[in-house]
Amino acid sequence: MASQYPPSLRIHLPLLLLLLQVGFILIFLFFISYDHNNKEEDLAIYPALQDVNVMVVSGFAFLLAFLRRYGFSSTGFTLLLAALGVQWTVIVDGFLFNFSGGKVKINLQSILTAIMSVTAVLISSGAVLGKVNLLQLIWMAMVELTAFTVNRWIAVDILKIGNHESLMHVHLFGTYFGLMASWKCCHSLMPKLEKQRSQPVSDKFAMLGTLFLWVFWPTFNSALLKDGVEKGTAIYNTYFAIAASTLTAFSFSVATNSNGKLCMADIQTATLAGGVALGFPAPIIQHPWIAIVLGLLAGAISVAAVSLSQKCLESAIGIHDTRGVHYTFGLPSLLGGIVHVILIVIDNWENLSVLGYSALIKIGALSLSIAIGLVAGVTTGFSLKCKLWKAVPVKKYFDDQAYWEVRQRFSPAILLQFKKSRDNVAIKTPCPLLYLKLFV
Amino acid sequence: MASQYPPSLRIHLPLLLLLLQVGFILIFLFFISYDHNNKEEDLAIYPALQDVNVMVVSGFAFLLAFLRRYGFSSTGFTLLLAALGVQWTVIVDGFLFNFSGGKVKINLQSILTAIMSVTAVLISSGAVLGKVNLLQLIWMAMVELTAFTVNRWIAVDILKIGNHESLMHVHLFGTYFGLMASWKCCHSLMPKLEKQRSQPVSDKFAMLGTLFLWVFWPTFNSALLKDGVEKGTAIYNTYFAIAASTLTAFSFSVATNSNGKLCMADIQTATLAGGVALGFPAPIIQHPWIAIVLGLLAGAISVAAVSLSQKCLESAIGIHDTRGVHYTFGLPSLLGGIVHVILIVIDNWENLSVLGYSALIKIGALSLSIAIGLVAGVTTGFSLKCKLWKAVPVKKYFDDQAYWEVRQRFSPAILLQFKKSRDNVAIKTPCPLLYLKLFV
Amino acid sequence: MASQYPPSLRIHLPLLLLLLQVGFILIFLFFISYDHNNKEEDLAIYPALQDVNVMVVSGFAFLLAFLRRYGFSSTGFTLLLAALGVQWTVIVDGFLFNFSGGKVKINLQSILTAIMSVTAVLISSGAVLGKVNLLQLIWMAMVELTAFTVNRWIAVDILKIGNHESLMHVHLFGTYFGLMASWKCCHSLMPKLEKQRSQPVSDKFAMLGTLFLWVFWPTFNSALLKDGVEKGTAIYNTYFAIAASTLTAFSFSVATNSNGKLCMADIQTATLAGGVALGFPAPIIQHPWIAIVLGLLAGAISVAAVSLSQKCLESAIGIHDTRGVHYTFGLPSLLGGIVHVILIVIDNWENLSVLGYSALIKIGALSLSIAIGLVAGVTTGFSLKCKLWKAVPVKKYFDDQAYWEVRQRFSPAILLQFKKSRDNVAIKTPCPLLYLKLFV
Repeated sequence: MASQYPPSLRIHLPLLLLLLQVGFILIFLFFISYDHNNKEEDLAIYPALQDVNVMVVSGFAFLLAFLRRYGFSSTGFTLLLAALGVQWTVIVDGFLFNFSGGKVKINLQSILTAIMSVTAVLISSGAVLGKVNLLQLIWMAMVELTAFTVNRWIAVDILKIGNHESLMHVHLFGTYFGLMASWKCCHSLMPKLEKQRSQPVSDKFAMLGTLFLWVFWPTFNSALLKDGVEKGTAIYNTYFAIAASTLTAFSFSVATNSNGKLCMADIQTATLAGGVALGFPAPIIQHPWIAIVLGLLAGAISVAAVSLSQKCLESAIGIHDTRGVHYTFGLPSLLGGIVHVILIVIDNWENLSVLGYSALIKIGALSLSIAIGLVAGVTTGFSLKCKLWKAVPVKKYFDDQAYWEVRQRFSPAILLQFKKSRDNVAIKTPCPLLYLKLFV
Repeated sequence: MASQYPPSLRIHLPLLLLLLQVGFILIFLFFISYDHNNKEEDLAIYPALQDVNVMVVSGFAFLLAFLRRYGFSSTGFTLLLAALGVQWTVIVDGFLFNFSGGKVKINLQSILTAIMSVTAVLISSGAVLGKVNLLQLIWMAMVELTAFTVNRWIAVDILKIGNHESLMHVHLFGTYFGLMASWKCCHSLMPKLEKQRSQPVSDKFAMLGTLFLWVFWPTFNSALLKDGVEKGTAIYNTYFAIAASTLTAFSFSVATNSNGKLCMADIQTATLAGGVALGFPAPIIQHPWIAIVLGLLAGAISVAAVSLSQKCLESAIGIHDTRGVHYTFGLPSLLGGIVHVILIVIDNWENLSVLGYSALIKIGALSLSIAIGLVAGVTTGFSLKCKLWKAVPVKKYFDDQAYWEVRQRFSPAILLQFKKSRDNVAIKTPCPLLYLKLFV
Repeated sequence: MASQYPPSLRIHLPLLLLLLQVGFILIFLFFISYDHNNKEEDLAIYPALQDVNVMVVSGFAFLLAFLRRYGFSSTGFTLLLAALGVQWTVIVDGFLFNFSGGKVKINLQSILTAIMSVTAVLISSGAVLGKVNLLQLIWMAMVELTAFTVNRWIAVDILKIGNHESLMHVHLFGTYFGLMASWKCCHSLMPKLEKQRSQPVSDKFAMLGTLFLWVFWPTFNSALLKDGVEKGTAIYNTYFAIAASTLTAFSFSVATNSNGKLCMADIQTATLAGGVALGFPAPIIQHPWIAIVLGLLAGAISVAAVSLSQKCLESAIGIHDTRGVHYTFGLPSLLGGIVHVILIVIDNWENLSVLGYSALIKIGALSLSIAIGLVAGVTTGFSLKCKLWKAVPVKKYFDDQAYWEVRQRFSPAILLQFKKSRDNVAIKTPCPLLYLKLFV
């Protein structure tokens, strides 16, 4: 009952949200209007937009809802970050990419780009999950989306990377931004709290989120491609790769577990690795077996990294990654980026001048995303330590009660009984059995 | 264990359902056939139909599943009402709109119209949630869908309102019908039951339903529009408005809470307000900022009304609104209707003759929906008090056990222990109550 | 705590999965390439593919998650079987149907066919749910998909049944295969375990799966049809039939229950019966009332069979059908097949030569599917008894703990208290903690 929300947040949070929303309204009022050209072509991407929307709003919300006492925050904050992030990204993206004559014209593609960019924030929020409050998350989202869109603008306008490809950097960017933010602003050597674990029910919700992401990943990897052949190829490849990574996830999960059992956290991590890994190379892989091999490797790396690198990250460097986004999104995406470069090298082997140039450009774009992600993440992490944000103390980490009016769980009648019973001496038998029933 | 379903319902409910279904079959046999013209155009709305289907069948089912002991009924009854309502609405709608030469021709658009009309019933069922039995719900659905379709027919055929717009009255109609039905047929001054509250798990299911509705709302507001530009505009506007109402929902939820915390009920209510408010004006708003302002207002009104008007409605007038549909659907839709009229006035400012006429028509249609909703609701509420329906007593309100064979929750072993413990001298008071709480 | 996974499975399972995946890669490498012709037409089926994907991966996963302690396995194993089955079916189907010039060309339609074929495995896995381990499921899936694709090849290439129709045999094939496998490999006279029952929360997850299947069933019954009119007709008919079976499900569930209450298991079974029954005749039913009558019958048979035949199947023949797939998929599909033949007879009544031929062919195809299903099921069931598979003992049936690292459910602090309390006479201390744990 003592888990009082810092009282000043009562004013800070509502005010910040209202100010942001009013700010957005003013920007929309003066600069942004709808683009009604090519309406048919534009409406044709609506189904893909909805698939991605389901991934982001339902998929990520429940993917992050695995903590036993943090389900309200995982789902609620994800929804808020999506609603906030889409508006802000439409603005930033519009000014950087479509600003002409003092006006920004937006269409469905702008919204699709925005919702895909929001993935970066959700990945980062997986790394800091349960350790930062909503004010901090909002600030993080604003900074991260600005940095990511600037990063995209450099990639598209200067490095001449395609629009689709520039958005696939979202996994790398989000991961390293989140890891750095977590490193700088959260206590990593926290006590091993019970609340940091999942529960059978919360794991089933997390599985639901995983399945949404699994099903719609081919849309994510193909939505922004214009060419029919490329779009089809991206769909096939992603489908086969994510299937392969699912097999490897199960295989490696049993192999690396000391009791020879499956681990739900591995399944929720590594089954998606194939989809992430295909982000970069999906449209250019011409043979299904390459996609399958890549999916297999991504799943394997994902599970193997959990056992190998978690200790390293957490104890040696001191980065605490609540959701394990490094294994779900970071490493598989890095693998995909490297394979992408290798494939380009092989494709252009005969034409050395093109080869060197395009390979370098891709490597440059990858490095740039990681670098901007790291730097922006560290900066944001530092800024999040500011007292202004009223950070939660470590003992309130991973707990909905810090932010939500979790309805009183004791009925008054029960409480009364309970008080009486304490004064009573006996109560012998039922308790052991009670324990067993309790956790079914 | 004594929660016996009134025995005569064993005959009433199966018979009523069978009779209805056989009646539908006879009507379909003599009057209804498929329309195979314009097959291409017709199949093109299939994705939108599926989106709306997901909203109605999965979204509403889980949105209403927030009560701790009423999850089976919320999801099951929603499914039944959808299956029943679609068949009945296809019939009524067919006779009123497409009857020619003794035959009614139906196509995918008829089904889409029907499933969107069913929303009215589901909104009303939110107001009476947990307080009426399945027989009463079936009767309510039949009356309400007939009244709503007649209302639509008056709007379309007499007032010359468009088909899409006539369906957007569904929120207003459903809300006021439901409130009146709840007022007339249910005890409003019931004891504050534990069962009337949610539970963390049931709230997560309700959040799932909310997210489905949130994601697919742009489809709901655009599915029946024919013109590409209008469809696109409706999608954009709904998307931005629902995003804005999400921000306001979080902002106002913290601001109005006495502990400065978020309240799950507010989030599940007010995040959707933006989508509801856009129902009427979505296709005609030409600037995104107007949609965003409207979403912001809708979210704010929704949360503010919960704290201000709930007391008034419940204690002063005596209307008990279980799901708070007045705040989720009623008020935001009313706001949207008023803004719609204002926008028409502004658009036609120069042309006074058109202005007066169309503004009056819109206001007339709004008033008509509310009026028919109120009258039909009161009448239905009265008719639901009839002894024929075997209404549930107040103490069985909000409880699945009144309708469902909730499988025995005590394992024999536990029961044995429990019986032993009762004979035992010690442990008297707390355990029995504890057991009851355990399996909520 | 003693639920040790047989240690040798630690090697078997990872190895088997890796070997299979490497085998697939080799086959893909040497034989399979993408077909980029008709890209537009191919991409047009992507939305249908995603609907079916949601049905298979999310729908079936949660439909099977009704057991109280088997939710991880139901969802996880379904995902694995889908990922494995799609790859294997693409291979087998490719070799049987599209092998030319030493190469197999695949496209989106191949993936759609594969994911629909996987339904057979998931239906069968419903019959053996909780009684076989993952090794056995993988073996079963490989054999079943091979047998089903051979069955389809006979139907299409020899009996000249259409491609769409050949896939609709999936329900019959899957059911009888699963029943036979369960008969031969599992103990049927097992003790009535507590774990064999559902729980309110697991039933809500199962309801979620049911709703996904319900919503997307029209897509399942129309996805592979090429002709617009047939596609539209299949959609309408399925929609009305599944609505009718929902009404009957509720009606019969109350009528057959001894307390006059609804039974969640009936609802999860019989609401889907209409969709299953329409599998065969959906595209050729010309009047909606026929579809509705068929849906009504399917729902009725489904519920009635549960009460009548379950005893017969289980005690007389000794077949234990965990999920009741015989009532959800087997009988309704058989009904649909018979009605299909009757409709063809009526349609061709004037033309006796065509009539006899096509009716015989349809009956032949039905019998063939059942026969191959039965024989393959019995054989597989026998082969599953092989010691190699390390079958789970009966007392570990229906339990996630046999396969999953279910995170330790007692916090160390609680356990300590609990141990102390046993030695202690009065158990004073643990209760407060217990209460706190209770309502997490």
